[in-house]
Amino acid sequence: MAVAFFSNEEGARFAPDMMGSLVYVGGLSAEEAHDTVGIDGSTVGAELERIGYLGSAPTPGLAPTAFVELHIEQGPVLEEAGIQIGVVDGVQGISWTEVTIVGQSNHAGTTPMRLRRDPGVVAVALGIFVRELAIELGHPQVGTVGRMEFSPNLVNVVPARVTMTVDLRNTDEEVLRSAEERVLARLASLAAAEGVGYETRTLARFEPVIFDPAIIDLVESAAQAQGLSTLRMPSGAGHDAQMLARVCPTAMIFTPSHRGLSHNPAEHTDPDDLEAGANVLLDVLLALAR
Amino acid sequence: MAVAFFSNEEGARFAPDMMGSLVYVGGLSAEEAHDTVGIDGSTVGAELERIGYLGSAPTPGLAPTAFVELHIEQGPVLEEAGIQIGVVDGVQGISWTEVTIVGQSNHAGTTPMRLRRDPGVVAVALGIFVRELAIELGHPQVGTVGRMEFSPNLVNVVPARVTMTVDLRNTDEEVLRSAEERVLARLASLAAAEGVGYETRTLARFEPVIFDPAIIDLVESAAQAQGLSTLRMPSGAGHDAQMLARVCPTAMIFTPSHRGLSHNPAEHTDPDDLEAGANVLLDVLLALAR
Repeated sequence: MAVAFFSNEEGARFAPDMMGSLVYVGGLSAEEAHDTVGIDGSTVGAELERIGYLGSAPTPGLAPTAFVELHIEQGPVLEEAGIQIGVVDGVQGISWTEVTIVGQSNHAGTTPMRLRRDPGVVAVALGIFVRELAIELGHPQVGTVGRMEFSPNLVNVVPARVTMTVDLRNTDEEVLRSAEERVLARLASLAAAEGVGYETRTLARFEPVIFDPAIIDLVESAAQAQGLSTLRMPSGAGHDAQMLARVCPTAMIFTPSHRGLSHNPAEHTDPDDLEAGANVLLDVLLALAR
Repeated sequence: MAVAFFSNEEGARFAPDMMGSLVYVGGLSAEEAHDTVGIDGSTVGAELERIGYLGSAPTPGLAPTAFVELHIEQGPVLEEAGIQIGVVDGVQGISWTEVTIVGQSNHAGTTPMRLRRDPGVVAVALGIFVRELAIELGHPQVGTVGRMEFSPNLVNVVPARVTMTVDLRNTDEEVLRSAEERVLARLASLAAAEGVGYETRTLARFEPVIFDPAIIDLVESAAQAQGLSTLRMPSGAGHDAQMLARVCPTAMIFTPSHRGLSHNPAEHTDPDDLEAGANVLLDVLLALAR
């Protein structure tokens, strides 16, 4: 039995997310990971060396017999339902695209509207479309514009360039792919109408993952044997477990998140819930080890 | 006769724009100007001292007999019409508003769309409205979102806060005021629908200015006496002349801008056009001095 933590699970600075576990299972070479340039211009390899974490173990690493991950839900479902343990049966597919739109910077007072080629107008229209599309496709589809950067970003200047990100997720790969295609089609038509250019770059793309039925059952029965209430649910967030699922039977255990908050300084899970989750993990691992 | 230049005409770092001339004519005290905090957190007074430009002359300053300003058009009108000298008869009113929208930062994967309070969605919808409003009101109305800042600005995080600016301009004060009201009304309804809070701050607000008819005529006749073609036109940009117009008869002379580009490194005016403009300014000043 071993306890594992993987570097750069979040991916907000260095994309893709779940980078460490992706390298561990052989989905990305350590060299490519080290060469990854972050949003601040630094590289993963140089930063790992700087903090003393640049290891030398060969990758991909040994495939374990099974992998079980305990995590906070990071969403409001368990708390709203009054449930203590989430029995995670899979992970939503994730699509991250960075869009850079390039127009014609100009004076905000003297440039008539008809002569503008404003990348900001395309960016905001695409932002609205992402929201409308997620609503139209319905739960569990989500769509988020989390990054938006105007350049030169001045009150009286039509921007020259806008960089933004689109985060799309769904448990259904076909729906997710269709959502990606519709975002790109809308971007193309908006850019053509405004007379601006654009580029897109995939920051991360992972298909939905279905966990191992036997371990899912084991998580459920271990929780119930402890008198804990359970709910089967997919994960909306990406997790290292979905990478390990490529090489061994895998599942996850969720504990409730207060007010569903995550990626937020107010993120909180009650100590009792953390302890309950840890005990379920222990029992599942002991059962798998026997 | 005197040549004058005024500090911080642009206002992109320290709002409002035309700050130096506004102080000169008594529209703002030197103390208030010095205390102005810029987008980088510095103050006008500290920065003037740092670069050795913190003067001690009393303000408001002496009102001149007349003020005439030579400037590049910063727009495409003269070049498109093949005209050498713009006889500027007034300046568009300018309205700059900073909007800060505060929502609930959260995880982009686990937060269902129905539970989101996303300030980014309000910001992009307001951005679209500014463009649509300017088109609907028609020339010479312009509307620009030049600044847009998401926080924490990460691909997989629903933003907590967005700050953006709205720049509105028109030669008609009544239309400009109505445009401002409609932007604020739309902001209120968008924020209510998304369940987010917001604040607005006026960064600059100047009513349209009409220049002195006698000096306008003088600019036109001086240009024509030199064999230069002329066009009467308003200025879409703000200029120090509109501040001086509060205390003395004032007008402006425009020279063509290549491709109408301004607030852009490619801004350019042909040397022949610059010389023609300078000669018109000289003749106008000589006529006024006699």
